Amino acid sequence: MNKKLLYILLICTGLLSFWSPVVHASSETVHEDPVAPLLLALLVILLVAKGGGELFERLGMPAVLGELVGGIIIGNLVLINPAWSFFEPLRELTIEVHWAVIVDGLARLGVIILLFEVGLESTLDGMLKVGTSSFIVAILGVVAPAVLGYGISWLLIREIPPQLAGRIPAGFSLHYIHLFIGCVLCATSVGITARVFKDMKRLQTKEAQIILGAAVIDDVLGLIVLAVVSGIVTAAKAGLAFQASSIFRILGISVLFLGGALTIGRFMIPKIMNQLAKLRTGGMMLISSLLLAFLLSYLAGLAGLAAIVGAFAAGLLLEKVHFQGFREDIDIFELIRPVSTFLVPIFFVLMGIQVHLESFANLSILGLAAGITIAAIIGKQVCAYGAIEKGLDRLSIGVGMIPRGEVGLIFASIGRSMNVIDPSTFSAVVIMVIVTTLVTPPILKVTIARCDRKKIGVSEASSNISKAQ
Amino acid sequence: MNKKLLYILLICTGLLSFWSPVVHASSETVHEDPVAPLLLALLVILLVAKGGGELFERLGMPAVLGELVGGIIIGNLVLINPAWSFFEPLRELTIEVHWAVIVDGLARLGVIILLFEVGLESTLDGMLKVGTSSFIVAILGVVAPAVLGYGISWLLIREIPPQLAGRIPAGFSLHYIHLFIGCVLCATSVGITARVFKDMKRLQTKEAQIILGAAVIDDVLGLIVLAVVSGIVTAAKAGLAFQASSIFRILGISVLFLGGALTIGRFMIPKIMNQLAKLRTGGMMLISSLLLAFLLSYLAGLAGLAAIVGAFAAGLLLEKVHFQGFREDIDIFELIRPVSTFLVPIFFVLMGIQVHLESFANLSILGLAAGITIAAIIGKQVCAYGAIEKGLDRLSIGVGMIPRGEVGLIFASIGRSMNVIDPSTFSAVVIMVIVTTLVTPPILKVTIARCDRKKIGVSEASSNISKAQ
Repeated sequence: MNKKLLYILLICTGLLSFWSPVVHASSETVHEDPVAPLLLALLVILLVAKGGGELFERLGMPAVLGELVGGIIIGNLVLINPAWSFFEPLRELTIEVHWAVIVDGLARLGVIILLFEVGLESTLDGMLKVGTSSFIVAILGVVAPAVLGYGISWLLIREIPPQLAGRIPAGFSLHYIHLFIGCVLCATSVGITARVFKDMKRLQTKEAQIILGAAVIDDVLGLIVLAVVSGIVTAAKAGLAFQASSIFRILGISVLFLGGALTIGRFMIPKIMNQLAKLRTGGMMLISSLLLAFLLSYLAGLAGLAAIVGAFAAGLLLEKVHFQGFREDIDIFELIRPVSTFLVPIFFVLMGIQVHLESFANLSILGLAAGITIAAIIGKQVCAYGAIEKGLDRLSIGVGMIPRGEVGLIFASIGRSMNVIDPSTFSAVVIMVIVTTLVTPPILKVTIARCDRKKIGVSEASSNISKAQ
Repeated sequence: MNKKLLYILLICTGLLSFWSPVVHASSETVHEDPVAPLLLALLVILLVAKGGGELFERLGMPAVLGELVGGIIIGNLVLINPAWSFFEPLRELTIEVHWAVIVDGLARLGVIILLFEVGLESTLDGMLKVGTSSFIVAILGVVAPAVLGYGISWLLIREIPPQLAGRIPAGFSLHYIHLFIGCVLCATSVGITARVFKDMKRLQTKEAQIILGAAVIDDVLGLIVLAVVSGIVTAAKAGLAFQASSIFRILGISVLFLGGALTIGRFMIPKIMNQLAKLRTGGMMLISSLLLAFLLSYLAGLAGLAAIVGAFAAGLLLEKVHFQGFREDIDIFELIRPVSTFLVPIFFVLMGIQVHLESFANLSILGLAAGITIAAIIGKQVCAYGAIEKGLDRLSIGVGMIPRGEVGLIFASIGRSMNVIDPSTFSAVVIMVIVTTLVTPPILKVTIARCDRKKIGVSEASSNISKAQ
């Protein structure tokens, strides 16, 4: 038992000492991106809470006391070394607490939990088993809308939006706005499509299966595109001019990060989970999942990628089997769901709140909204040609891929917080997300019914032929 | 079905129109207490999310889209009436998002969830069945430490702490500090005591049962004392001089609020829950519980009481039986627990972080810590005399009531955010909480063992007598 105690203490101390130099670098960029230091703070706080709680549990004391003592230690590290001042903002009486910042923070955490859940629902093996048609459909479904989106933005946005003036970094060009709009159009969210297919009892058709497979691949492709685009913008903010080579560099970092996290994680996670399952302190199943999600999100940020890339990777890594050793006789989904049930709606309502309807009094914004909506719809029609099997209802595949849903929204919100997407453009994007989702079910019902009639026509014709024979 | 749709819309609209005038009043006090507008914002956001989600589900559209449209509506209410500008801070790009504010907000929500859980674990019926001894023990256990705490604070704090200078409102007197310290000492947290009794297989003894019963009553009594003390401070900040009569006024409000909430709630909640259970949108079981907790917490704030009083009342009101109609085949505890597993440790670690160890270099602060710790221990010894049964081990009862735990901490944190408790005094209170919890198990083990020896002695003596006869 004493050996295990030592273990826990060593892990805590090790992580703390790893964290302190990192912290110094990140605390300087606090005003840049609040998510990175928030994730770091939550990581350290939850780690210290569980480390202290475990220690006190083993000493026969309430875990709460351990959490308190852990807090006293990390809060007073500054007495040992004045550079370890990361937690000082939490100790000052002067910090201005505004409720809107807290709501904003809850929404940001909501997105991370949402992408973590999306990742949990997919598995690496399932992703590798997706068919060739789905794969090509997914790639075309990312490339075509991205190109169209860039084009339509280039056509319609000819000057830097007035609301961005004064916030844009040196070296900013309209280029970045076009790139981000292209990126937003890449996303696919086939939930509503799946529901239409299900309602019409067509979920087992080849068309539905291709769409569902493509959606899984699209999640990853979309995140890579987002990583590249946001990487380019971040580099531009740091004063680096845009170069074609930097795309490859950032693409390399994204693939390396995802590949690295998935490879190392696949090897390490079963071992770490086995150790964590032995702890006595409560709630470790949920907290260890959250710690992994926050850790990978934070590391993604350090690598210059969006935090949600890391959250998705964390979800992809965790499988049910990793939790077999834990006392809790409950599925990990059941533990994450209450957290997401609380936090995720806050994100979506906040996205709605940030839509400025008065923007649409401006005809050019209305035109932009119409333009990107049309680009979004047409762009996905291209991917129907990626389905290689014969006799498919290609129109239904193209229509089924139209909805942008939450992923497009998340990308747009990231663009907004990077000061690339201004409030009016953001409003146009939200309208696009709503319209693409609203139009899909009625159109899809028509195309499926039309295809049915054709098939009946064909089979009637062939039965007539056979009768004639 | 259309009737139900109408129902939902009416409820949403009604609540929205109720909320807008209220909001105006509260948005002016934003910098005073961030919890009230945070709760209001979360209430409206979650309500709109679920109302919109339900509507869209019924129309065969994804709930997410309904949440988005709901957000667009509440965000753009300002276009109809410029006074409905509550959500404007969420739409401005200029708001400064600092991670520490988000962590602070998560901790504040954590306390509300914690008190909600404490309330959920107790039932109104269980509270009314508590024995006379427990009741008297609880009352003495609140009165004696409060008086002693006031006295020790009066002895040791002779001037306004320098860290409070410049923040104190007009009419502030040392009196309020003494009152708050008395209030902090009222709390009891018998978790560790119950564990010692359990480990020694004494949980079924009369002594243990009296302590456990007293703890249930203490939760309510402590909250009433907190309500009165914080009410007096709030009145003072509003420029009202302290009067003995105001104690009775605030006591009246507290009792009215708790009584009113519990009476109305008991009648209304089964009906509301029955309606909510019929909704199709997901997660309603958790969200309806959170909505009730946030609503009562917010109303408690409006009544001038601490938000946690409302959270506790909400928990007290909700019983398992209210959730029978919901689709989810799960206990409400299981749904709240993941949320509290995530948020509550953040509160405790934050309390630790806010301890300034360097304060104790100042001898007077060290003396204060020692003084209130001693007052805390002696104060609870008085309550042993409340146990009316004969032949009880009174010493064990007094010792078992010593730990202050989380409730004392929560009270101190409220005092801190009201600028009545300065950082140094807060640090002293945390030390008191830790020491009272740490000393209890060893002392309790000794007193229980001593009592055992006495009983054995008595029985040996009586058996000797019977042998002799």
